[in-house]
Amino acid sequence: MASGDLAASAGSALAVLRGRRPLTHVIANYVSMDVTANALLAIGASPAMVHAIEEVEAFVGLSDALSINIGTLSRPWVEAMLAAAAAAQARGLPWTLDPVGVGATRFRDETSAALLAHRPTAIRGNASEIMALARLAGAAATGARGKGVDSANATGDAEDAARALARATGAVVAATGAVDFVTDGTRSARILGGHALMPQVTALGCALSATAAAFLAGADDAFAATAAALGAFAVAGARAGAQTRGPGSFRVALLDELAALDPADFAPRIEAAA
Amino acid sequence: MASGDLAASAGSALAVLRGRRPLTHVIANYVSMDVTANALLAIGASPAMVHAIEEVEAFVGLSDALSINIGTLSRPWVEAMLAAAAAAQARGLPWTLDPVGVGATRFRDETSAALLAHRPTAIRGNASEIMALARLAGAAATGARGKGVDSANATGDAEDAARALARATGAVVAATGAVDFVTDGTRSARILGGHALMPQVTALGCALSATAAAFLAGADDAFAATAAALGAFAVAGARAGAQTRGPGSFRVALLDELAALDPADFAPRIEAAA
Amino acid sequence: MASGDLAASAGSALAVLRGRRPLTHVIANYVSMDVTANALLAIGASPAMVHAIEEVEAFVGLSDALSINIGTLSRPWVEAMLAAAAAAQARGLPWTLDPVGVGATRFRDETSAALLAHRPTAIRGNASEIMALARLAGAAATGARGKGVDSANATGDAEDAARALARATGAVVAATGAVDFVTDGTRSARILGGHALMPQVTALGCALSATAAAFLAGADDAFAATAAALGAFAVAGARAGAQTRGPGSFRVALLDELAALDPADFAPRIEAAA
Repeated sequence: MASGDLAASAGSALAVLRGRRPLTHVIANYVSMDVTANALLAIGASPAMVHAIEEVEAFVGLSDALSINIGTLSRPWVEAMLAAAAAAQARGLPWTLDPVGVGATRFRDETSAALLAHRPTAIRGNASEIMALARLAGAAATGARGKGVDSANATGDAEDAARALARATGAVVAATGAVDFVTDGTRSARILGGHALMPQVTALGCALSATAAAFLAGADDAFAATAAALGAFAVAGARAGAQTRGPGSFRVALLDELAALDPADFAPRIEAAA
Repeated sequence: MASGDLAASAGSALAVLRGRRPLTHVIANYVSMDVTANALLAIGASPAMVHAIEEVEAFVGLSDALSINIGTLSRPWVEAMLAAAAAAQARGLPWTLDPVGVGATRFRDETSAALLAHRPTAIRGNASEIMALARLAGAAATGARGKGVDSANATGDAEDAARALARATGAVVAATGAVDFVTDGTRSARILGGHALMPQVTALGCALSATAAAFLAGADDAFAATAAALGAFAVAGARAGAQTRGPGSFRVALLDELAALDPADFAPRIEAAA
Repeated sequence: MASGDLAASAGSALAVLRGRRPLTHVIANYVSMDVTANALLAIGASPAMVHAIEEVEAFVGLSDALSINIGTLSRPWVEAMLAAAAAAQARGLPWTLDPVGVGATRFRDETSAALLAHRPTAIRGNASEIMALARLAGAAATGARGKGVDSANATGDAEDAARALARATGAVVAATGAVDFVTDGTRSARILGGHALMPQVTALGCALSATAAAFLAGADDAFAATAAALGAFAVAGARAGAQTRGPGSFRVALLDELAALDPADFAPRIEAAA
């Protein structure tokens, strides 16, 4: 798919999402729940945060997509994540993995590896996380330098790791930062836009991972759907940054701009990459 | 009570709340904690989120009201909810139940039924939740069509179920949506106002359920107190909507407008219903 | 250190923080996580919320500072808090304790006492909490009158208790309110500024406690570093209050103002106290 096609398909992907209003089951970290639910509502999805082992499988059965984020892990949540991922895999439901802080501790590495076995449809992380996950998957020997949950690498450093991870897992892989990179192992693209204030607001990456799940609901082309989600944040982020002066007001404006995105006028800057 | 009386009593209910600053114990879902605490502070209450089985009973003993929300359930939280509800019932402390997503899974149904046995003072949900809860309580055979935690029914569909649920449980029951409906089984009213952006912001219903608990603290008439809480969100929501352009700025303005409500000038649009 | 020196050192403390971007490990209460992470990002730190017993010790080993907040306690979290505090103590890592609601229940008192044994570098609470903690530590017989998690005492009431608590524990102790008081048992100061809207926004005290941990990372003088953190909130709060009309917009502006603080122009109003 050419980059012009990706930009055009983003508009129709947004129109489909708005029409479908996908029930998006999110197993989110605590820090991200508020902004993630609000971003999903703003873009036009119907979010539900459900994490109890007693009901995650049943809830996957009601949902149009699933998103799993390992930010604030604990043993009971890991069990629920694995049950939900297994249920999504069994039903063919699209699901996204956000491997927050993978590489920082053995607990995160083991959890990420176990989740990868359930074949996420898409994976989104910062550059350091994608590089660490690629190494975990045996897909690449990388020089990931994470700092807690923040990246110490630029996304340009992660492109090879992202491609290798996509090939090893079958997932669409997105490494996000000042420039976003997305690949399915064969096709690759870079998404431009966004704003320097985005990393000063907590959990926008988490919100984007869940938003990608909403775009994947019922999508034919997971690569294009993931690129559309990245494009939505890139466009809304650029618009929000143009009208605000700090991270507090930026977050408010970002939610307004996600809601204001018009499928007829939604043309993210997506460039095909080698 | 005539509807004019309800509107007039809402002003005095707000004045009482502001003077009393009720300590409102909230067992909230994770998604809603931030906006719920901020809404309670804005309206003039003193919120405290406490959920450990080791201390919920003691904390109920310190509090003026309790609010229980089942949004992000898990087994340890259910145990604490039941202990807190039992303690409130034993002490005659007013408490509100928000049955998020009831009808979606067996876990939610069982938890809701167990909580109902402790006689909530008021119940607030969307139309689908009220209809599902009425069916659970054996009060009505309803056609609830929830979608995860969002309603697929209008509140008009839920009026009969709300009345039946109120009669079966002794609780004041509120079904909220574009128009809110509240009933104690004998008296009923509709509250007008609010704004189309409200369902685009996560957890405002949860925040309203907790706010109703604060209004119930020490109130003589639970029906009027619940109507006053609904009226506060309806008036603040309409004012917030008039000055904002999207869900991010709407949420900010709603908190400002809740704080700015003036008991002397607080006249929600409440209509008596058959 | 004279008060002029404290104000001057606050600017250099902020410059050091911005340059270092300390990885700040936070075991936060649920209500506070969003605003705490956003405040840490705004001031220039790198926050990470990590609470699982499986990884807290490893994560302390990666971090520059630790902050523990007991707001929404439960048994598994207490175990993780104690493991993290012990690891910080063993490594000489600075850490702050926020004893939310201490004095309200036995569970909070026992947890606070156990955490004190691991020698926090600094303690921040409202006046009632500092007074209750001083009594717990056997440092003073005080008349703390908390109301849930809100203070029913002014900080002026807590000055003696704060000094006694500092002497008994070796920690810098801050009691915050309309005027903040900070002491290491020998030196004491009051920080002026802030705004009347601050207590109408949930968890700003929690966010300040975590921000103090970020200022303590690598600091030579814990008293000056804690005063600098208090000064940051006091200056940003006063500026935010001057441009907003309610608690919703105040919170947004506070985050903008924390990010906008300029080390070259950061002169909090700090007065030496007897």
